[in-house]
Formats: sequence, structure tokens, C-alpha cells
Amino acid sequence: MNLKDNHLLNVADRAKDLLEREGLDALIASSAENVYYLSGQPSVFMYTFRMSEAAFAVVFRDPGRNSILIMSEFEASGLPEVIPGFDIVTYPQWIDLDDPFGMRKDLFTGERPDAPRPDAALAALAETLPASGLTAGAVVAAELGGMRGGTRALLAERLPLLRWAEAAPLFTALRARKTGFEIAQLRESCAISEEALSAAVQDIAAGVTAAELAAAFRIAATRRCFGFSERFATISVGPQFAPASVYSPHRAAPGDIIKFDVGADVQGYGADIARTFALGEPGDAAKRAYAALRPGHDRMLELVGPGVPMAAVFAEGMQVIRRSGLPDYNRGHLGHSIGLALATEEAPFFSAADTTVLEPNMVVCIETPYYGYGVGSVMIEDMLLITENGNERLNKLTRDLVVL
Amino acid sequence: MNLKDNHLLNVADRAKDLLEREGLDALIASSAENVYYLSGQPSVFMYTFRMSEAAFAVVFRDPGRNSILIMSEFEASGLPEVIPGFDIVTYPQWIDLDDPFGMRKDLFTGERPDAPRPDAALAALAETLPASGLTAGAVVAAELGGMRGGTRALLAERLPLLRWAEAAPLFTALRARKTGFEIAQLRESCAISEEALSAAVQDIAAGVTAAELAAAFRIAATRRCFGFSERFATISVGPQFAPASVYSPHRAAPGDIIKFDVGADVQGYGADIARTFALGEPGDAAKRAYAALRPGHDRMLELVGPGVPMAAVFAEGMQVIRRSGLPDYNRGHLGHSIGLALATEEAPFFSAADTTVLEPNMVVCIETPYYGYGVGSVMIEDMLLITENGNERLNKLTRDLVVL
Repeated sequence: MNLKDNHLLNVADRAKDLLEREGLDALIASSAENVYYLSGQPSVFMYTFRMSEAAFAVVFRDPGRNSILIMSEFEASGLPEVIPGFDIVTYPQWIDLDDPFGMRKDLFTGERPDAPRPDAALAALAETLPASGLTAGAVVAAELGGMRGGTRALLAERLPLLRWAEAAPLFTALRARKTGFEIAQLRESCAISEEALSAAVQDIAAGVTAAELAAAFRIAATRRCFGFSERFATISVGPQFAPASVYSPHRAAPGDIIKFDVGADVQGYGADIARTFALGEPGDAAKRAYAALRPGHDRMLELVGPGVPMAAVFAEGMQVIRRSGLPDYNRGHLGHSIGLALATEEAPFFSAADTTVLEPNMVVCIETPYYGYGVGSVMIEDMLLITENGNERLNKLTRDLVVL
Repeated sequence: MNLKDNHLLNVADRAKDLLEREGLDALIASSAENVYYLSGQPSVFMYTFRMSEAAFAVVFRDPGRNSILIMSEFEASGLPEVIPGFDIVTYPQWIDLDDPFGMRKDLFTGERPDAPRPDAALAALAETLPASGLTAGAVVAAELGGMRGGTRALLAERLPLLRWAEAAPLFTALRARKTGFEIAQLRESCAISEEALSAAVQDIAAGVTAAELAAAFRIAATRRCFGFSERFATISVGPQFAPASVYSPHRAAPGDIIKFDVGADVQGYGADIARTFALGEPGDAAKRAYAALRPGHDRMLELVGPGVPMAAVFAEGMQVIRRSGLPDYNRGHLGHSIGLALATEEAPFFSAADTTVLEPNMVVCIETPYYGYGVGSVMIEDMLLITENGNERLNKLTRDLVVL
């Protein structure tokens, strides 16, 4: 069995176990990431065109019952003929499909909607679920808080006999522990992100802008890999540290600090790494920030391992940073789980409130970002795989503040 | 006054007029596109990190009342000091901001949340609105169907004295008519998309994959412009026409048709254009499809102009295509408005059901896509600006099926 099939089997098994343990009957995924996580099939309407709930994946507690993938007929035309353990249900879109050679037995010939219908996939879900062995009163976990208000209202209206629970904590628990397939994607994403970052660093010179460095990163990453999305390239040059859709026109000048916080997408999985550079000798405020962050960061890298509470890592990191020169450092978390999330950061977090204890096969980021008015951004971020005995650092680049 | 300030003034004026006409007291934007549309300020947390409702923009019917932009403190650090006609309200995130040189009077020093809170911006909105002159019973239009279920529920809970209306039709009406700023962005996006498409076409040769052509398009587009998002590059090589997050491994072979349906992002505005190529002589099915689509497409290009109902253009295009060789062509629409939508296509549509009559300053796409099992995709798509007397074609590339 290949790595991906093994991954999907593992996800399905753990999902069914979790449903059993929580007394739930089914788990419905409605976000781009979770539909892909359960089914192995990404929806381009969700990833690229950002249409909410254009596909659903449903896993049942019943070990003998196939899972269901609901996807538009147009997208489904690209699916493998068989997805092990899944039944595929399609719904028509506004897009005509022709079959001049009579290759399909199931060609849709009815009336098509005139335009995208935001509830088309949900209508297919509502028609499909009652035939899936869910009886009145069955409790179904769905992404209630994350789905659109319209979808949430229609779910209740169209399936009035089901009871609903929030699925977010279940997906957090499932996704935090990675399979071999997932670790392979994250490892490659980290390597590509470091390569592309290093390629962009070659362009650092007086006069360069953040937009130019971000373009250099994107071009280098795209040369290596074509992912599901562009992920992110949050690059600052000089004092302006705000994340930007329209980059600051500031051109690099001597003494500027230059921060890369970037990630490339590999099969839907994305790295989140950061390194900081200076164009000539940086100012005292940037040096003081780096001198405080670095020992805290390094201390956390040492601490991370199986059995360690994430809150303990946070507490130690904050303490070291505060006593090393940033007494008022006031950040909510110093790292997070990493995987499929298009928002990049995902739960659990290295924060005071998180009760998660690290386990083998979790992949996490440790980050120590500093943003100072009149200074800019100083940041280190590393990806770590939790192993049986400690951690494996996925990053290879130096954590030093590199003066160019 | 510059083009963008003029645009924002025009949008605010038209929004206030529309609220007056509809008897509504305020309009709340909560999607990435509409927050940017009303305020001129894009949220990177929404565009890049896809966090829903991380920012809000509110316009009031009262002509004397400033609009409100709610944005996280971290993002807001990059805003201009003054946004004409707007008050800025910020909320704290998990991200620490330092002020070593005492540059800010408003530095947040309270307790930060430990991680992203999906309702942080909404909490700020709920605290701000009651002081904005909205009295009990005021009717507020918000993107109810599009916002997350959690946000919709909290809105009702936190602001129980307001009444709510769906804002989607208002935004459709406002956004369909473009300002000079918007037309300039769309014109540039179309030009960059054609340039990048032409650059990628240079790579068409036996053995090339869709992923390689998509990467070539993206790299060429990124060289010309750094937009808010990557928009899309839906490219098919040979018979596999499904849109893909993971591209088909198929390598181009003689007779394959190759379709580019692409758009680059310029300041949040995105083109949507398509052209088709063949690697050597294409098969009969592809030739027949092109021969049917082309006259229908060209007829629609002639018809489009002010005062013309979009449904009439659709009816005529379908009739010509069906009688030119594709009698069963069954598509829901043959084009759409184009602008900010990350989903690319936006209302109104060239469809049987749409009642919109074209007006000057609308920018629309005319498209005639064919997807055939065993054939692949044949497609032409053009962008048109509606003028006082007819239309201006923004595309310069030939609409011919180019045999390479």
C-alpha cells in the first residue's frame, strides 16, 4: 500500500475511533482542508476559487459503512475511478460536460443551474444522508462555527431529525498527529521554503523592496513545486512590519532589517518558517530584540519532546526572552501545530492556556516574532517533528541574524 | 484627487444612496472583497490567511457620519494615518507590538489572547456599533449568508436591538458598475494575464504537463505584478479537463488540445480570460466544438452594449452555438461580471434567468467553454468594458484555435 492510501486508512480509522469514544454517529467535513483530509481529494472550487462548502466528506462511526464524498460533477470528472472506502455523490453545476464518444454511463442531461448556487452541494448532502443509516436523533459533528450562516441554517432545516455537534475539536485532535504521508509533505515543504527563501536572499541589496523579495520567493517556490495554493510570503524590509497585500514601497537602506516569514504548499501542506537578515549593521533596538529572542527560542527547541506540555514550553520561552532584554514581551503564543491549515497556524498552540501534551508524530512550529514601531520585524521560526525521544529539526538554515 | 480616492468617494456615495433607497440604516462588509471595496484597505488575514471576518467595514446611510473600519492592531499598523471618511477601530491579537522609541500614543498593553480568536473582530464591531447612532429597530444589511454561522449567531446575540437584512444584492448592484480606478486595474490585469499566457505558450511542446504550463504562467505573472492572491491558472493538456489542485501527470502528445483559463491579480482585481491551442492537428471532436463555439462567441461580442439585457445575449449565443454543431450544448451561463471576486465569476450573469440590462462602465466576461470526455477543453473567454455606444474589447490575443 502506498503512503497516501495508508494515510487515508489511518485517518478513517482514527476518525471512527474518535466518533465511538465521543458517542457521535458521523463526522462531516465542509472546509477545504478537512474535505481533503478525510477524502484525500482536494476541491479546486474551495482551494482556488474559495467557494465555501462546494464539497463535503462524511465519515460514519459504523465500521462497515463507506464514507461519502460529495463533489460537483465537473470536479468529480477528475477523480480516480475508485476511492477506497468512499462512495462518490456528484451534483450538477452550470458547466456543460459533453460525451461525444459515449464514455460515461452517468452523464447528466437535466436542467443546469444558471450560475453558481451556494447551496448546491448542501442539497446533495441533505438528499444523501438520510439513506446512510442515520436514524432520528443521531448526533452528527459538523464544522458549525466555520461554515457559512446560510449553510448552517439549511442543515438544520433540511435534516431536522438529526442532532448537531461542533466538529472543530475533533479535527484538531485528529490533525495534530501526523501520518507518514503528512510528515513527508511537511518535510518537503520546509526544504522548498528554505531553498526559495535562500534564493530570494540573493536579491537583498540597497534599493530592493519587500514586494520584489516576495516575488523572488514565489518564483523560486513555484519552480520547485505546484501546490494547492500560494500559501504566504510575509516579508518586511525596514521599519514597516505590517503584513501586507499591497507592500510598502520602502526601498532597503543600510541598517534595515529584513524578515522572511514564508511557506510553500506541497500537496496542501504548508511550511511556516522565518529568518531575519540585516543590510549592514542593524540598529541597537533590533540587536537587543534578537539578543533576547534567540536564547528563548533555542531553549524551547531543546525542551520540545514527547510528554512535554505545550504550556510549559511557552512559559519557559517567555521567561527567558523577558529576562534577556525584552521585559515587556507580551505575545499570546510562541508556536503552534502545522499542517493543512490555509491560515498557517493551527491548534494546538504553545500558549499559557493550551493543555496539550506533545506526542510523537506531531509537527510543530516554534516562533519568536518581534514587531517594533520604528524598528521592523525580527523573527525566528522553526519546524520540528516530535520523535520518540525528542525532536527532529526540519530546518537546516542558520538561526543567526545574518548581516549582509 | 487621485484615482483611488475618487473611487472610494464614489463607492461611499453610491452606497449611501442605495441605503436611502432601500430604507436601510447601515451596510456592513465582512468578506475580504467587500471590506476592501468599501474601505480601500485589504486585510491580509482575510486575503492571504483566509480568516473569515477578521475585519469589517461599515457605511452608514447618514451622509454626515463617518464610515468605520475594524481591523486588528497588527494589520492596522500598516494603514495610512488618515483614511478620508473613515474612523479606524482596532482590536488586539496574540501578536506583541513594541514601541521602543515612544512613537505611539495608543499602544495596547493589556492581556493578549493566546491564539487567533475567530470572534475578536466581531466583538469590536458589537462594541462600536451602538455608539454609531443606530437606534433600536435600525435595519442593517450584512453579508448574512456568506459569513460564518458562528458570526451570524453572535451578531444577533450581541446586537439584539438591530434588525438584519441580506447585503449580497446590494454589493452585487454596487460592484457591477466600475469606477475609473477599477477599470484601470482590470485593464492591467487583462494585459498581464495575456502576457503571462503568451509566455507560458512558448513552453508548449510534446511532453509538457499542465502543471508546468501553470507554473510558467504564474512565474510570468508574478514577474509583472504582486497581487493580493494568486488568482487562478486552470490549464488543461489533452483529454483530462477537470480543474485540478493536483494536476494530471499527462504529458502533451500530438493532437492534444491545450486550454488556458487564467487570471492575474492586480490590486485585488482579477482578469478571467481563456484561449485554446493545439499541439499539431487536433481531432475532429475538438474541431467541431471550436467551430460551434466561435460563431456564438463572436455574435455575443457584437451584441454586448448599453441597454442590452444580459439574458438576450445568452439566448442568442446559445442559439448560434447549438445550430453550429453542438445541438446539446447545455451551459447555465455564457459570461458574468468581473472584478474583485476571489471566485472569479460574479453576478450578474449572462444567463436565461438574469434580468440585468447592461450599462456603461460594467466590465464583463463572455465565455464559451466546452468540456468533452475523451476530448478535453476548448474555450474562449474575453473581457469587455461596456461603453456609451457599445463595448471595448480588453483582450488583444487572437480568438483563433492556434495550432502549434
